[in-house]
Amino acid sequence: MKTLWQHCNVATMANGTYSIIEDAALVTRDGYIEWIGPRQQLPAGEYGQTHGLEGAWVTPGLIDCHTHTVFGGNRSGEFEQRLQGVSYAEIAAAGGGIASTVRATRAASEEELFASARQRLICLLRDGVTSVEIKSGYGLSLESERKILRVIRRLGQELPVTVRSTCLAAHALPPEYKDRADDYIDHICNEMLPALADEGLVDAVDAFCEYLAFSPAQVERVFKVAQQLGLPVKLHAEQLSSLHGSSLAARYQALSADHLEFMTEEDAIAMAQSGTVAVLLPGAFYFLRETQLPPMEALRKHGVKIAIASDLNPGTSPGLSLRLMLNMACTLFRMTPEEALAGVTQHAATALGMGETHGSLEPGKVADFVAWNIDRPADLAYWLGGDLDKRVVRNGVDVAL
Amino acid sequence: MKTLWQHCNVATMANGTYSIIEDAALVTRDGYIEWIGPRQQLPAGEYGQTHGLEGAWVTPGLIDCHTHTVFGGNRSGEFEQRLQGVSYAEIAAAGGGIASTVRATRAASEEELFASARQRLICLLRDGVTSVEIKSGYGLSLESERKILRVIRRLGQELPVTVRSTCLAAHALPPEYKDRADDYIDHICNEMLPALADEGLVDAVDAFCEYLAFSPAQVERVFKVAQQLGLPVKLHAEQLSSLHGSSLAARYQALSADHLEFMTEEDAIAMAQSGTVAVLLPGAFYFLRETQLPPMEALRKHGVKIAIASDLNPGTSPGLSLRLMLNMACTLFRMTPEEALAGVTQHAATALGMGETHGSLEPGKVADFVAWNIDRPADLAYWLGGDLDKRVVRNGVDVAL
Ligand SMILES: [Zn+2]
Ligand SMILES: [Zn+2]
Repeated sequence: MKTLWQHCNVATMANGTYSIIEDAALVTRDGYIEWIGPRQQLPAGEYGQTHGLEGAWVTPGLIDCHTHTVFGGNRSGEFEQRLQGVSYAEIAAAGGGIASTVRATRAASEEELFASARQRLICLLRDGVTSVEIKSGYGLSLESERKILRVIRRLGQELPVTVRSTCLAAHALPPEYKDRADDYIDHICNEMLPALADEGLVDAVDAFCEYLAFSPAQVERVFKVAQQLGLPVKLHAEQLSSLHGSSLAARYQALSADHLEFMTEEDAIAMAQSGTVAVLLPGAFYFLRETQLPPMEALRKHGVKIAIASDLNPGTSPGLSLRLMLNMACTLFRMTPEEALAGVTQHAATALGMGETHGSLEPGKVADFVAWNIDRPADLAYWLGGDLDKRVVRNGVDVAL
Repeated sequence: MKTLWQHCNVATMANGTYSIIEDAALVTRDGYIEWIGPRQQLPAGEYGQTHGLEGAWVTPGLIDCHTHTVFGGNRSGEFEQRLQGVSYAEIAAAGGGIASTVRATRAASEEELFASARQRLICLLRDGVTSVEIKSGYGLSLESERKILRVIRRLGQELPVTVRSTCLAAHALPPEYKDRADDYIDHICNEMLPALADEGLVDAVDAFCEYLAFSPAQVERVFKVAQQLGLPVKLHAEQLSSLHGSSLAARYQALSADHLEFMTEEDAIAMAQSGTVAVLLPGAFYFLRETQLPPMEALRKHGVKIAIASDLNPGTSPGLSLRLMLNMACTLFRMTPEEALAGVTQHAATALGMGETHGSLEPGKVADFVAWNIDRPADLAYWLGGDLDKRVVRNGVDVAL
């Protein structure tokens, strides 16, 4: 049976632009959009249900395409120590930093990890998110990465959100492989990835390419195995220095390269050619008080698609609101509200390999949308925080949280 | 009848410090705190109701001591234009900026202003706010300032929040007084303030002391009239330049001086002596991409009490979350989470002249508190956005929103 939604304006975000339809109507059926257009042109038909949206602005459901939602503990204690004057070196010497999150994640039961991640994910959903990517990467052993990936799958089953699972075993060097990075990469390539992929726990493979993590040569070994396993790749690249990881990612037709503050114009050209999405993470930029801005002009000039994500993680971006990231993308990176909104809809969908089915409101796409009680689409990037009045629809059905 | 609250940890914020009580109990009666301490020391007594708080962290209800919540329209359109490359001068020439908010506010009915302000205020309350200050200042005529102040009073009557009303008629020069700032100050002093105070609409008087607003001499005339009317004063000072408005405010025993990026050490000494609270507004600092930081060391050295507020307003800080301002105070101003929390509890209460009755959890104070499902108090400043799990209690009674 068809459902009619009307008395609204729509920013369809087709092709990553507002593509506004005023006084619009949407027809959904079996979870998909069957028709969308000006209400005056609505074809005759019978509807099982008709919903009036009271003049709301409808956008695609928001898509957070880069998060590390599943982790044990949190690092608010370190956050406080730093502000009390304790140095990074002192915190690291006391076992802090990512090592403390790995310890807490390994020690946590699957049930505990699920409960804490569920609470954080609900924060994202209450802000209008209908699809999310979640990475592993705080386990760093076959057993504990498996535990995280199982929690990620379960989140997608139990919460009203489409979840894409990314294996980020190559996130950091686990303590048992100290000074043996190549051995750890062997372990990832020969044991972890094949096993986890075989268990159906992995939708994509990611790595952290940085002088304090893994070299381009090490990343390339991981990418080759992903390719053999038929899994798409992504990469944390150019956050703190320029190793041209984003060009490497482009050579492997990566779905996305993420962070990118230190990327070059050559990297942008390579990404444009491969269709690799640039995922910018303004929450981490803000939280770390970085000063090197991503090269917006080069990205625009070469037509690289730009996505925005929360990077939700305990160390560098404890971000529980994707809409806040829209404001930070505008305020800090000088993106327009339209670019920012495209970055959490159509381009975010493309960064997850689901751009054909999600990310815009067009016939044939999944009926994931949000009806916002706002004056214009730019409001989504303008307001700082707050729980905006909204109605969230996923697969054509109202979401209750 | 007494009510018992237990199985929680408390950051009482007495004297503006965490003052933590682990495994605590609170006894409330008739909306006030009757007893608070370690649960083991709870005096024998009978309770009409007993609430278990499941290990939550209890803090005083948050107090947002500087907002401009009541206004017509919003400025997301200008926000978008700016990011599309339109200059401030072009926007101002087209009637934008504060002038557009004044036009929209004057044109709006009391009912419309109430409805939009109500929606914004609910965002603040959902984030744990139990007391809020709201300023007029987008009317700039007797009639329209009265309209705003009546809406402010009504918000306090209809929503579960304690509202303090501040008359900010000296916010900007209305168009009908172009080039006649002294005449407008005459009008404020001789007609507006006496009438509005007489109608019981004003709890405090504020002004904007800045080269693009009013001079110290003009502000002083407003302060003198406030003093005659028995009303406490506050001041927007040193946001864009140093006119020593904060020292002027101190001479008039102002409750607070607000913004303060350009204040000097001498200003800090004057404020410390008069007990004038420094209200810092990191949301405006962030939104305007300012670079001049408030002089934190001078404020600390001289013992000036520091509050933090949202500055919720359409032009320079569309901030709907006070908790986000805690993060910005820490991240941008390098305050500690403890200083930031004191800034939205005890010191914010003092900035509103209600420090004796609100702002900390001590016997005899009003029973306004929030039970947060968090690991430690620093979490309130650590997480970026999101609707944290919480239970809000005001006047000893659960708040439903
Ligand atoms: Zn990341
Ligand atoms: Zn203000």
